[in-house]
Amino acid sequence: MITLDYNNMMTEFVTNGIKEEALHALSNIAEKAVLNIEARRKKDLEFLELPYNQNDIINDILKYRDEMKHIETYVVLGIGGSALGTIALQNALNHPYYNELREEARCGLPKLYVIDNVDPEILASLLEIIDVDKSLFNVISKSGETIETMSQFKEIKKLLKNSENIVCTTDKENGSLIEIAKEEGYKCFYIPRNVGGRFSVLTPVSLLPLAFCGVDIKALLEGAALMDEQCKSTNISENPALAFAVLNYLSMKAGKNIIAMMPYANSLKYISDWFAQLWAESLGKKFDRNGNTVHVGSTPIKTLGVTDQHSMLQLFSEGPYDKIIVFIGSKKYRKEFADHSNLIQIEQAATQYALSTAERQNMTITLDEINEQSIGKLIHFFQIAVAYTAEFLNINAFDQPGVEETKKMTYALLHEKEEVLNRVKKKERYVI
Amino acid sequence: MITLDYNNMMTEFVTNGIKEEALHALSNIAEKAVLNIEARRKKDLEFLELPYNQNDIINDILKYRDEMKHIETYVVLGIGGSALGTIALQNALNHPYYNELREEARCGLPKLYVIDNVDPEILASLLEIIDVDKSLFNVISKSGETIETMSQFKEIKKLLKNSENIVCTTDKENGSLIEIAKEEGYKCFYIPRNVGGRFSVLTPVSLLPLAFCGVDIKALLEGAALMDEQCKSTNISENPALAFAVLNYLSMKAGKNIIAMMPYANSLKYISDWFAQLWAESLGKKFDRNGNTVHVGSTPIKTLGVTDQHSMLQLFSEGPYDKIIVFIGSKKYRKEFADHSNLIQIEQAATQYALSTAERQNMTITLDEINEQSIGKLIHFFQIAVAYTAEFLNINAFDQPGVEETKKMTYALLHEKEEVLNRVKKKERYVI
Repeated sequence: MITLDYNNMMTEFVTNGIKEEALHALSNIAEKAVLNIEARRKKDLEFLELPYNQNDIINDILKYRDEMKHIETYVVLGIGGSALGTIALQNALNHPYYNELREEARCGLPKLYVIDNVDPEILASLLEIIDVDKSLFNVISKSGETIETMSQFKEIKKLLKNSENIVCTTDKENGSLIEIAKEEGYKCFYIPRNVGGRFSVLTPVSLLPLAFCGVDIKALLEGAALMDEQCKSTNISENPALAFAVLNYLSMKAGKNIIAMMPYANSLKYISDWFAQLWAESLGKKFDRNGNTVHVGSTPIKTLGVTDQHSMLQLFSEGPYDKIIVFIGSKKYRKEFADHSNLIQIEQAATQYALSTAERQNMTITLDEINEQSIGKLIHFFQIAVAYTAEFLNINAFDQPGVEETKKMTYALLHEKEEVLNRVKKKERYVI
Repeated sequence: MITLDYNNMMTEFVTNGIKEEALHALSNIAEKAVLNIEARRKKDLEFLELPYNQNDIINDILKYRDEMKHIETYVVLGIGGSALGTIALQNALNHPYYNELREEARCGLPKLYVIDNVDPEILASLLEIIDVDKSLFNVISKSGETIETMSQFKEIKKLLKNSENIVCTTDKENGSLIEIAKEEGYKCFYIPRNVGGRFSVLTPVSLLPLAFCGVDIKALLEGAALMDEQCKSTNISENPALAFAVLNYLSMKAGKNIIAMMPYANSLKYISDWFAQLWAESLGKKFDRNGNTVHVGSTPIKTLGVTDQHSMLQLFSEGPYDKIIVFIGSKKYRKEFADHSNLIQIEQAATQYALSTAERQNMTITLDEINEQSIGKLIHFFQIAVAYTAEFLNINAFDQPGVEETKKMTYALLHEKEEVLNRVKKKERYVI
């Protein structure tokens, strides 16, 4: 069970909160949002079908994992959607010090590193601590053209004697990566054509590395399927993703341009990072679907309870009324530590209470416990909620035109550096 | 050298940017801000003196470190200001996989763990991977009353045979921690009375653990001293912290309520977390110094280049005009990785260009290289800039009244649970 408690979003609990009538007034649009998304399920929104249509893929993944049992280190080369889901779920579901466990304590499973930056210090440092010949490098890029990933890959390839140390996750037909993979005979897994990077956590993008690290990927998909069923209702008070979308839409319309994600569990820290990409890239848009300039999108921020009570809470409770806070809690923790065990839950309740008292809107998602099934539910909940929110905003949640300018300029700087740099004239007096 | 380039904050480069006249118009207030802060240097703002007044303390720290050379693991028990500086500087200055290096590669230095949450899973998991009898537990709480830290400490104490495995960092006179320390004869280091938690990174709070991990803490303070000197000018175009404060003040006044920190170096990732606390707790305030209700404070968000180009850039370039972006770059990286090495710098330049083209204000802090001295400069730059910004806003940067309600409620829930819980009545229909 996952529950969404939005009492503290409502005007009965927080001054200037949402009125129940405002929810009712949106019920027609809400119904249409669900039907619109549902209608695209078998067409271009394949992420909705991922919980159901991957039996063969799961078998392939598990078979490949068993063949590769000898590898000691699993390295993901990927960035953005190719990295964030794996980081989030590995941290949620495995030991917090997984890579530092002795091999027996890790049950012989490989260490996992996700290299999601082109900082030369990171890759050079990684090579100091791993044995490349006992490592499996998983190159992940849907387009096969991601400059950061392909650049890392080009260098790693030179160090490897054996093509079995490489596995590619990419589009089945398009891009440089699949071409290289075919030429060199690399093992490949595929990202479905109709699943975008930030919606790909339930594809081999994350399923493959997680399976290598002992995560029960079937249970993950089962959880997602259960949430998918729960989100078929067109009724706001029955469909949690729909309620989340409506509440966020109304908050954005009321001028709240920040959404703070605040899990009260160290293991869920990186769920916020994954959510941030999903939310920001899907909803941060210049144009609506009619071509009107709208510049919408609330900014997701990542916080962690109780840690950030000592960092962000002062601003949350006394600063501008510009944000909503989304708590994520768990009824149970997987380990005990003396009378410490319920302090985190008490502090979560105290912070919810204090923020409401300070008239700050907040809502709470509660998991029964943190495991594959509940995490499958949680991520699918967010994926569906983002799709709905875009319906209310009348924007396309599935493109990212705003990153093109950086890509073009990167390309230009790489290839004709001097001339392009001249375009960026600066005033020296604005440099101290 | 650290430079602050604010070309892209200005109207010559970004439509609706800041006019040069607006900077000039604030020159009197700016001068007063510097003089106000300077006047408090020898009184209540002792963080300004920390680069100069700690020779004896440094010697004590280094002597103690040499005595304790045999310890294998250094564990910080602390939260907020007692943890964030150490995490930030350890990541900035040591190997990215420090704890995973073999002992020889770590030159025999201890592993470092900072336990800044009361999640029972974290502490229980830590105990699975360390040998407590070969560990030094550094309990850090200025007030000596931090419930999270004291609760962790109470349990850890029970596991230890030897009082030499504990070192306390706290106020010299007040609070439970110094009392316990005196009773039990624990080694102690002190946090100066007039230095608040979020300004304590240059006290033994961080200097002690960093010294144990091989960081040159003298060079860190030398860097801070150099920045301190540079920030004595009352002229906006000479004092980088003053320029940063003015630019932020004008941006906030223009309705930009978000400040995104975006270092282009993995090693600087946690500088953003440390900055977030400093900024949010210092500037997120309900009242100004005349008692007027103001609800000010922009919200710091943590991003990382180039990684978050694949996560936040879409929103930054197409979403609302509600934020400024602060890049932090380095002219040199400490390791090379083939032709990869300058891709990160090219992408930084491309992103700055693309954001300016999209009319998004941004500025860039550039370090010559990342080392103890430059990091000392950088953190002191931010500390002074925050103090100045509060002067412009006419608020007290050095208190945090907004966290009291949570503390009171936590206490109430811990001690009279049922009755207090009844205060929080909920509507079941707002729970899905």
